[in-house]
This record gives sequence, C-alpha cells and structure tokens, in this order.
Amino acid sequence: MGEKANLTSETEGQSPRLKFVPQAQIQRVLQAELKPLDRAAILADLFRINALYMISQAGSGHIGSSFSCLDILTYLWTIEMKHPNRPEESEFDLFFSSKGHDSPAVYAAMTGLGRLDFELIHELRRLGGLPGHPDVSTPGIVTNTGSLGMGVAKARGMIIAARLNKKKARAFVITGDGELQEGQIWESLQPTANGGFGEITLIVDHNKIQSDTWVKDVSDLGDLEAKFRAFGWETARCDGHDFAQIEAVFTRFRGITNKPKVLIADTRKGQGVSFMQMLTTTEDGTYYKFHSGAPSHMHYAEAFEELETSLRGKMQTGGAQALSAALDFSEADQRPRPAPQNPQKLIAAYGDELVRLAAKHPELVALDADLVLDTGLIPFSRQYPERFIECGIAEQDMVSTAGGLALMGKLPIVHSFACFLSTRPNEQIYNNATEKTKIIYVGSLAGLLPAGPGHSHQSVRDISCLGAVPGLTLIEPCNEQETRLALRWAVEESKESVYIRLVSIPSETPFELPADYALVPGRGVTLRPGRDALVFAYGPTMLAPACRAAEALAGENVSVQVVNFPWLNRVDTHWLKSALDGIATVLILDDHLRDQGLGEKLTAALAEQGLADGRRIVRKGLTDTPLCGRNDEILAHYRFDPASLAEDIKRAISGASGNAI
Amino acid sequence: MGEKANLTSETEGQSPRLKFVPQAQIQRVLQAELKPLDRAAILADLFRINALYMISQAGSGHIGSSFSCLDILTYLWTIEMKHPNRPEESEFDLFFSSKGHDSPAVYAAMTGLGRLDFELIHELRRLGGLPGHPDVSTPGIVTNTGSLGMGVAKARGMIIAARLNKKKARAFVITGDGELQEGQIWESLQPTANGGFGEITLIVDHNKIQSDTWVKDVSDLGDLEAKFRAFGWETARCDGHDFAQIEAVFTRFRGITNKPKVLIADTRKGQGVSFMQMLTTTEDGTYYKFHSGAPSHMHYAEAFEELETSLRGKMQTGGAQALSAALDFSEADQRPRPAPQNPQKLIAAYGDELVRLAAKHPELVALDADLVLDTGLIPFSRQYPERFIECGIAEQDMVSTAGGLALMGKLPIVHSFACFLSTRPNEQIYNNATEKTKIIYVGSLAGLLPAGPGHSHQSVRDISCLGAVPGLTLIEPCNEQETRLALRWAVEESKESVYIRLVSIPSETPFELPADYALVPGRGVTLRPGRDALVFAYGPTMLAPACRAAEALAGENVSVQVVNFPWLNRVDTHWLKSALDGIATVLILDDHLRDQGLGEKLTAALAEQGLADGRRIVRKGLTDTPLCGRNDEILAHYRFDPASLAEDIKRAISGASGNAI
Repeated sequence: MGEKANLTSETEGQSPRLKFVPQAQIQRVLQAELKPLDRAAILADLFRINALYMISQAGSGHIGSSFSCLDILTYLWTIEMKHPNRPEESEFDLFFSSKGHDSPAVYAAMTGLGRLDFELIHELRRLGGLPGHPDVSTPGIVTNTGSLGMGVAKARGMIIAARLNKKKARAFVITGDGELQEGQIWESLQPTANGGFGEITLIVDHNKIQSDTWVKDVSDLGDLEAKFRAFGWETARCDGHDFAQIEAVFTRFRGITNKPKVLIADTRKGQGVSFMQMLTTTEDGTYYKFHSGAPSHMHYAEAFEELETSLRGKMQTGGAQALSAALDFSEADQRPRPAPQNPQKLIAAYGDELVRLAAKHPELVALDADLVLDTGLIPFSRQYPERFIECGIAEQDMVSTAGGLALMGKLPIVHSFACFLSTRPNEQIYNNATEKTKIIYVGSLAGLLPAGPGHSHQSVRDISCLGAVPGLTLIEPCNEQETRLALRWAVEESKESVYIRLVSIPSETPFELPADYALVPGRGVTLRPGRDALVFAYGPTMLAPACRAAEALAGENVSVQVVNFPWLNRVDTHWLKSALDGIATVLILDDHLRDQGLGEKLTAALAEQGLADGRRIVRKGLTDTPLCGRNDEILAHYRFDPASLAEDIKRAISGASGNAI
Repeated sequence: MGEKANLTSETEGQSPRLKFVPQAQIQRVLQAELKPLDRAAILADLFRINALYMISQAGSGHIGSSFSCLDILTYLWTIEMKHPNRPEESEFDLFFSSKGHDSPAVYAAMTGLGRLDFELIHELRRLGGLPGHPDVSTPGIVTNTGSLGMGVAKARGMIIAARLNKKKARAFVITGDGELQEGQIWESLQPTANGGFGEITLIVDHNKIQSDTWVKDVSDLGDLEAKFRAFGWETARCDGHDFAQIEAVFTRFRGITNKPKVLIADTRKGQGVSFMQMLTTTEDGTYYKFHSGAPSHMHYAEAFEELETSLRGKMQTGGAQALSAALDFSEADQRPRPAPQNPQKLIAAYGDELVRLAAKHPELVALDADLVLDTGLIPFSRQYPERFIECGIAEQDMVSTAGGLALMGKLPIVHSFACFLSTRPNEQIYNNATEKTKIIYVGSLAGLLPAGPGHSHQSVRDISCLGAVPGLTLIEPCNEQETRLALRWAVEESKESVYIRLVSIPSETPFELPADYALVPGRGVTLRPGRDALVFAYGPTMLAPACRAAEALAGENVSVQVVNFPWLNRVDTHWLKSALDGIATVLILDDHLRDQGLGEKLTAALAEQGLADGRRIVRKGLTDTPLCGRNDEILAHYRFDPASLAEDIKRAISGASGNAI
C-alpha cells in the first residue's frame, strides 16, 4: 500500500557502492551438501541481501514485508513446491503473493534459483525491468497483484481451471496481515471452504506491522485463527522464521486435502535487520519507516552488515564453513536518481491546510485507510485525535462510514490512494452521492507518476471512475498554493461533494499562479500566454513539461499558451469560449487514460458549443495500462517529456498530427 | 438483488380489486387494550396485507423478504425503539434496512404507525411516490440502501457522529442472509467491535432463501454465530416470528453496551403465506419465485385470504375479538400497467445463445452472483453444471475468480446486474485487464429502465466506470438478434475482453436490423434513413422512442435518420465520417448519464476529426441520479418519450437547443 516512491532525497554525500550476491555464489549454496532446511535458511539470507540491493538500486520498494516473508517463501520454492508456476506440466504448484509489494523478495528468490534472468536484479522498477508489483509479463509470475485482497479468489479460479483440465495442482498464496482488513478476503474464504479447495494454502505473513504502524493500533484483527476456522479453513500457526516449524506445518497440511488451509506465520517485519523490525520515533510521531521507499546510505550499510553477519552465522551452524570462507559479493554503483530541485510538496501542503481548516470547522472529520504517512494526515491525527478515524485497509467500510457521518451532519474527508479510492469503494461513493450529503474524497498518488510501483498504483483511471458520479466535483491542484485553495474551496464553498486528486511526488513547478488566483468551477488560469497553440493541462506532472515545452518553443518563435485547468469534470463554457479567442490549435494533456479523461470532456464541450469549428484539437493521454519505470524514463516513453511535447505541439500546429497523438 | 420488475404480463383476464387496511383500522389496533406483543403480532399481519397491496399495485417489489422481516420490524418500531429515526432528539434510535429491498415492509409499518403519509401506500415505485429501495427523500428514511453490504459501516458512521455530538443513540440494522456473502459486511464487523459499538444491533433476517434459491445451495454461510463471535460481536439466535423470543433477545441486548450485537433471526421468506415460503418447480427447474416481481391475480387472492385468516386468528388469541369483528378492508382498483406488445427479450436470447456457444467452446465457463433467474443463466447452468460457478452475492470474489480462470486458459463469462458489476468489483475488473487475459462481463438490468427499483439498480454510470479499462470493449445490443451477435462476437471474434450491457425489460422494438447485419467495432447501422438530422442511440430503451419520434416527424416532413451505435467506447472514425455526410444536425441519446456516456465520446471523436465543423451536436442523457417511477412516466419525465424526443429533435434542427437538452 504505502508508496513513498522516489521520495528519498539523497543529500548524504557520495553514493555508496551497493553489494549483491552473484548467481554463482547462490549456485554453490544450491549445489553444496546441506540439509534442506539449513540450505533454505542460508538462501533466504542471500535473497535478503539481493532484495536490499534491488530496492536500494531502484530507490524504492517494500523492504520490511520482503524480509518478513522470505523464509517461508524460500522454504516453498526450494522444498515444498513441484514445478512451481509451470501450468504446462500435468502436475504443478502455483505460487504468488497476494500482497504483491513483497515483489523484491519474490524476484530475489526467482533470480537466485534460476527461474528468472539474474541480470534483472539490476532493473527493479525500471522500464523493461522488474515491475514494482508483480506482473504476468515477467516470466514465472502467474498473476498481477498489488491491489490487495484478491489472492484467495484468484487462486480458486486457477484451481477450478486445473480441476476442469484434469491437472493436479496446488496453490500457495502469501497475504499480508493488514491485507486481511480488506473485505474481499473474507468474501472469498467461505466459498473456498464450501468447494473443498484443499489444493489452496494461504500463508498470512503476520508481521504485525502494516503500512504505518502496528496492525493492532490501525485496525486490530481479533482472533485470526478463530476467524479462519469459522469460515471452514484448517488453521496452523508457527514462527515464520523457524524452518523446522515451517516444515512441520506444511508436512501436516499435505495430508489435509478436503479443505483449504491457512498458516498464520508469526513473522517480524524487516526480519534480518534489527532496526527494520521496529517503529521509529521522530518529531512527527512513532511510525514504521521501512514499509516503502529505500533505505538511506547509512541504513543500507548497517543493514548489509547485519545481513552478512546473519548469513555467515547460518553458514557456520549449517555446516557450510567452506561456503562462508569463499563468500564473496559483487558490487555495483548506485545509479544516480534524478531528484527534483526545490520541489513543491502537495501532500504536505494539504495536510497543513487541513489542520488549519479543522480549527474553524468542528464538523470536519478525517478518515484514513492506513496511509497517514502518505496522505498528509499526521498533523491532523495528532491535533484532532477525536475527529480522526483510522479505518485500516478497508476502503469500502471507510467510505460507507463517511456516508453515515455525513447523514448525521458531519463533513467527512476520506483519504486513500487515488487508485484504490476511486475503484474499490466505487459503489459506496455512488451510494453516498445519491443521499446528496457532502463528503470530500482525497485521492493521493494520482496520475502516471510515481511510475515505480506499477499499474496497480498508477491511478490513471480515476477521472473515468468518478467523473460521472452525480454531485461530485473533481479537482486536481497543480502546486501547494492551489492545493490549499482546493481544500478550502471544497470545505467552505462547494455545496457538492468533491474529489481532490493529488499528485504525491515532490514536483518541480516551472510556473506560478497569479497572486490573486481564486478557484472558479469550470474555469482555467493561464500560466503562460501564447497565440499559436493553447495547451490545457492540470496537475504538476503535466503542467511542468507543458511549460518547459512552451519555453523551448518560444526560442523557436512558436508562441504557446499554457492553461492550468484543474476542473476535471466541470466546464464553464462561457469562459471556454473567451479563452479560445484567436486560438486555432488546442492540445489537451491528460495525466490519465485518453478515454474519459479531461480531454474527452473538454473536446465534447467545445464541439457542442460550436467552438470546435475550424480548430485543430488534439488530446494526449495514455492508451493502455501504464508501464512501470523511473519517472523520467516513463515520461519520455509516453512523450510527455518537454522535448517530445514540444515536437508534438509543433506537429499539432502544423496540422500534421491529425488524430490524437 | 433480483429484479424481475414489471415483467409480469397480466394475461389472466380482468384485474382484481386490491384490498388494503385503512389507517383507521390500524389506529384502532394501536389504541386497543392489548398486550404489547399481541399488538405487535396483529400489526405485523396488518402491515403484511398492506405490503402485499403495495407490491401488487406497483407491479413489482420484494414480497418474500418483506414478509420475513415484518415481525421483528414491527417489534422494533412499536416496542423497542425510542424516537425512531429522529436524530434531532437528544436521545434517539436509528432503524434502517441494509438489504433495502424489504422497503414495502418498512413503508407499510411507517405509514401504518403514522410516521409517513398513509396515502403513499398507493404510490409504491411511482414518480414522486415511494422508491423501490429506500431513499432519504422519504421522510423518516435515514439512509439509501439497495446496494448490499453497507449497513454496518453506515450505522457506525452515524453512531460516531452521535458520540461526537454527545447524543444518546442506538442503531438497529436489518440485513439479509444472502447479503452476508458481501465482503463489505465482514470488512465492517471487526472495526465495529474494536470501537466497542454497543449502540449497534444487527438483525440478520435469516430466511435461508436468497434471490434464486436456498442460501445453502448458492453459497453456504457456514456457522454464522461462530463467525460473528470471531469478529468480536455478541450473538443471539431466535425464531424471528416468535415475539416472546424476540423480546427476550432485545431485553438481553439492552444490557450489553460494550460491544455490537447481532441477532440471527430464523425466519421464513414469505412468512404468512404458505406458498410463498417454498421453492417452486417448473420446467425451468426449482427456484424461489416470490423474491421480486408481483404476484399473479390468483396468487394475490390466495395470499390475501391466508393473511386475513392469520390476522383474525391472532386477533382471537390476542383477546381482540371485537377488533376482528369490526375488521374491514378498503379496496382499490389495480391500476392498469402498460405492457409491451410482442416484446423482444434480450436476456432470454442471451441465455439461449450462451448455451449454443458453450457446445462449441469447451473453454467457456459462466459465473453468476445469485441472479440466474435474471441473467438468463438457467439453461446454461442446467446443461453445463460443471462449467457453471455460482458465487453468491460476492461480486469481487466472482471477478477475481474469473481472473484466475482466465490466467489458466479458460474463457470466463461473468454475470450480474450492470449497476453492481461495474462498480463493486471495479478494481478487480481493472486488475484482470492488466493481465491481458480475455474475460467477458455481462451486465444486465442496464440503463434507466426498469425505473421501479430506483437508483441503486438503475445502471446509468457503468459506461463511465468501465469505459476506460484498457482492453475492454463495451457493447450494448438493441434486440434479440444483436444480443446473439454481440455474444458471438465477444466469444469468437474479439481478441480483447468485452462488457455486454443488456437491457432486461422486455422491450418493443419498432425497428429491424438488416438481415445481413454483422458487428464491426466502432461502426453503427442505420435503422431509418433521413437527412434533416441524425440520431445516434443504442439499446432498445432509447432506440424505440428514437424510431417512434422519427416516424412521427416524417409526418411533418422532417426526415430523421436513426443509427444504432452499439459500441460504447469504440469509434471507427472513417465510418463516422461517411455516416455524417450531408448531415447538419446530430443528436446522441445516452441511456446513461450525460457525463462519460457515448455522447461525450462520439462528440469528442467528431471534433478531433474536424467533423464537428458546421454541425449542431446535441447530447441527451441524465444529469442527476435517476428517479424511481413507472417506466412510461420516467421516460416522459426525462423527455425520452417519442413526443418529447420529436420536439427536441426539431429544436435541435432549428438550432434552438443551443447547448445540451
């Protein structure tokens, strides 16, 4: 869930050399005379070192949950499973992680075991490399995860297919513990028991810390074993870092074929690195700091040292002294990561403005889905704890709770990532809307960037999913100033419900809003004047390259107007008419799919008003599932970098682009 | 859930007079000297008679679930609750039904108890009357339900607000048992226990029959009490038709204030009428036939007689012989209901075509969410039981199961109502789409009609919610022929996933498709030629009035072309260009909200292609939450009846309509 992707600003001086375990070293462990459980323990630590490498090299990734599940994962891949993820065989076992954000662990194991091209460890979260969350385009990955709670249902579908195909198959699925807050998990359990799906084994990686903090403090899970038993599942519980216990559970499970089984594995988040197993206290409060993002240089070095010590210890006790003596690491330069200069931080501005408004508005209540660190809610939650409702990873529950609050006169403000908030509780948002109450929804991590987490987190479909909800105004601010204005407008002026779409990455914003700028629904604001073409865009991700492209084109005597149009489903057609006066070429940039984004709405409005007559209109946006990669390479891939954009603007002006680019 | 709304074709001769209990009779019972439990039992039967009346008069409604919950509902409203649904008081109790389709029971009680204008009993499912599912526009209704599973979360929101407002409040929420298959229920339970919400009491109306058949045969619920206990709830179980037992439970519950409570009430669906308590066997199989729809004349008369006998019995044993002697009913004519002549039945055609295709395509697997009667799946489920997966009311689970099936090479076809399928599992549909597998989704009950169930079931937002899913083609057929073609195209030709949007009501279709008609993505087909204006529409609900309007205008020498454009998110711009040759005025009709419907997409495509130049383009569609009412009055309300449409076409041609109508 949490995604502080690419947020690490490396100001600590020279980048360190990063170490990884080369494949040959892993091969030696695989070929050595070792007891299987000792080998698995050693391999798990080797994989931890490589997962640490991958995340540090990528600049982001989920290290805590990768480490907590690696022992069980290694046991499964090296001891338990037959023909893992090879459904072409007549007998096979399926493995996938439902939580998905532990993908560095999965990749470390798969590359280490020769199931995946080893060189890919250098390409985590890169275009053409290993996606931030699992994707079936990677060989050996059987399903896309990263949207939580889908694992049991997907496994059941796979096993039903295997049954129909008369194949002998089992499925091993890892979930997080915070993930169990999702309703879909429980929706899936009883049918899986009813169907006698003994082929399915769920492993709850019960590390007891979710995105922000302890599970028990976010939304306590109660008696997990009693729950699973009540849903007809066979349960087991063990220390998820004790290989003998793990083996005992899976040995017992093998004999149970008439019902699904769950292992509640008591694990430690960040297992292997002492300081990644605990919460960190700073002036902001006490939170878990190693859920996502990448470790600092100092933390990297300390973590590596601990892991190496642990590894050598296991080699000693496992009777692999020779391996330890010959143990050698490869090194790679940490690649430079482009960091924005003097970035605008919309989330922080949002959080600060929320606290200000809360003082004036006692009716204001904030709801969160385990993302206080990512949605700017820490100040509010500390200052107004009685008006702060932590719902856990339970978006449907959160949105309907907000509905109940609004019906009783409160002004609920609901927070999550845009990708989840616009989809998982979509029917609940509509249901609230039919009651004509006022609710504010704030979807952060909106748009194409950060591109590192991959399509489960890149929210490029939320305008589509929410744009037609009656009485819901969608707005996306472009900088800190507009973020504050948007929240203020939503709380104090709007009669309707509002969805505020927030870009989470710190963004360079080569533009300024007028000092006297005020939001007027359906009206844009000119950031740069121009006469040869008018570019409509919204949010920092598109407005920054648009302004840079316009600046570059100015040097070529091409004069491009850039308009910030923050209203994603409202158009003031009178304003639009005046804005287009004298303009022959219009480009509309969507930080969204082309389908059902702002471009479609603005273009339709233009045509209905007769404003399309004689004008070239070009819409730019995504046309397929967004790719994962580093932000700059993804922008360039989709031709949203300033240079490509400048070319496309020129093509539009010349009439060469014809249809959409 | 199930909605065979307005499907009853009354071919049994003369309409009967319908009887109801006038308010004065109810008043006499309220004022008589009776023991409270005896009074409640008598009142419950009076309310049953009025619920039967309302549903028979409306022509549709959920009679089985209304009857099963009426005893508990009457106990709550007459004995347990203080200031029901009056949050303006300092101490109050909230009541609502989470399942929502038992609204006739709620209305019967509220009108009978003087909480709601009694005359409204004649106006169930009518424009300006009582909505098919609860809506807050009705005085005393505190929340909108009909979308299942939201009740616990909404109640918690309301109680949190009451706590913040320092008010003493409790909430009593009725759920169905089938409703417990929804994940949101379980998502909500643990947080409600964690917060110590002793104010909340859930009543599971455990009548053991869901929309189609026995709950245990659809998706067995397992040990319900163990489940609720595992989630931290206090549980009780009793006969939901035994007032003494009901009283004992609520008396005990009053003393438990530190945790939420659930009564699992063993009830009988259709309680009070013997033949409404059982499944019915016909040549189609054995199903429950009184979930929705209205009883036939014969069933009405028999049901009334049974209820009257029961009522008089209760009056006798309750010591109210005088009341029984004076018992008198009022009568009303059953209003005529417009019935389509020789209607096209898209659902039946769909179901038949599915069976044909299944014979050729062994990879085809069908999934259902407790709506086999409504989605045309009976033939398939009987002929291919091994390839039929009944998921229960668990749309997220169903869609992710389909995802798993597709990953293993199957072709899953997923069925539910469009309103639920496009929203509840929206993130799951997207997740499947990112895997680039092929899945067919079939959303029935699509569009504005039937209008009787109200906005929870009127699917006018599904194009918006699904139209931008990458690799998902949306198509809506207009008659039986095109329905068969659409399914065939989806199964045999489309490389991508497909969403088939199906109108469920039998529809008159005053048009025919060419005999050699074949589906070509993005291309429409002319149903009537014309030159003064071109009307684009899709599906029978809009194409029928469009063709009728064109016919009427032909008599006025206005020549209107009508094009069936079944592709909701695909446009062949070359075809579009040729289709518009010589046409100056274009109207696009959306059986959907104007926002993000076909109109927006077609208009944007026209403008991008320079085809908007010099043309008047008018889009018609909904601009707000759809109203509930009889189909003909709702069409007229939104000016989609042929006469209004003809006027609007003329206005468009004359250029008078300016912006959208």
